[in-house]
Amino acid sequence: MNPGSQHTEPKRRGRRSGGEDTKAALLAAAREVFVERGYEGATVRHIAARAGVDAAMVNHWFGGKEGLFAKAVLQLPIDPNTLVDHLLDGPDEAIGERIVRTFLTVWDPIGGGPFAAMVRSVTSHDQVAEVMRGFFVNTLLRRIVVHLDAPDGDLRATLAASQIIGMGMVRYVVRFEPLASADVDTLVKAIAPNVQRYLTGDLG
Amino acid sequence: MNPGSQHTEPKRRGRRSGGEDTKAALLAAAREVFVERGYEGATVRHIAARAGVDAAMVNHWFGGKEGLFAKAVLQLPIDPNTLVDHLLDGPDEAIGERIVRTFLTVWDPIGGGPFAAMVRSVTSHDQVAEVMRGFFVNTLLRRIVVHLDAPDGDLRATLAASQIIGMGMVRYVVRFEPLASADVDTLVKAIAPNVQRYLTGDLG
Repeated sequence: MNPGSQHTEPKRRGRRSGGEDTKAALLAAAREVFVERGYEGATVRHIAARAGVDAAMVNHWFGGKEGLFAKAVLQLPIDPNTLVDHLLDGPDEAIGERIVRTFLTVWDPIGGGPFAAMVRSVTSHDQVAEVMRGFFVNTLLRRIVVHLDAPDGDLRATLAASQIIGMGMVRYVVRFEPLASADVDTLVKAIAPNVQRYLTGDLG
Repeated sequence: MNPGSQHTEPKRRGRRSGGEDTKAALLAAAREVFVERGYEGATVRHIAARAGVDAAMVNHWFGGKEGLFAKAVLQLPIDPNTLVDHLLDGPDEAIGERIVRTFLTVWDPIGGGPFAAMVRSVTSHDQVAEVMRGFFVNTLLRRIVVHLDAPDGDLRATLAASQIIGMGMVRYVVRFEPLASADVDTLVKAIAPNVQRYLTGDLG
């Protein structure tokens, strides 16, 4: 699945406006259904029916439910399954480095706007926070916990999440210097060992 | 300075409504002036004049500019100078533990609402983010950096801030479990060593 497929279609079929309208309808339906039913309760079939679109198109365009959620609610520029595949592809003792470097590589080019918008949305709407919990805890963090198979895996995953979310807050939202402008290698060296300790080290 | 002095006056003078009105006017004037001039540019004299109040009352009620900012803009329940005094009072090699434990002890009883409100305010208004930067970086974190006197002190302080802010986000705003409900000792054991490494350890 090409994570950029929501932006450009390699093979364009039919009129552009038709495809773009259908995608917009799917994204709007997804936002409604995720908030109504939570991440776990929402199904691709339900969202597609709400938008009047064939469910197969959701997989074609967005890589399934995770991808649709990432695009519609988080406005992420990358399919989350592809992201987790990448994070898990390498030695466990370097997963902290891969997580920090990947987060910065995905968000730095976008700038702080979309990250701040996501945080604002979570703080303004309890239902959005609920949906985010379902997605991050049960889908994204769960895959990492299962892969690493460490004791207290769920606590470890949420500790790592606290550091990554905090890094995003300081770099993109409150922009405390010098962290906000530090180069990626400096931050990977400083932060990755802490994330690594949370995931595979001694928690005391 | 009693950090609770903004809530109860030990010696009440004059009519209650008069004192409460004056405090409310001061808080409103403070919010305006901090946003107009930034944290550094705003003066107690200016804020008091805007509210039509004697500047001495700002010190009496709020412990000066930091306390007024903490109450008016951050809605913190504690005077920040008192807070930093406490954090710096003890061995440097345990400052990570004091920071994590103090943060949880201050915020846990209040619950997530005010922390989420502060984050929402920062993400919604660039001027509030600018004022927060001035306050945290130049006042609160600066005192810790100067006290510890470690190389790359400013980077260290913002790294520590990233972990503390992220802990607050996961515990009070997005509420990822099990971190959101973990007891304070578990979190201190898990998180304090990482904050300590940022402040006094080897950053690689």
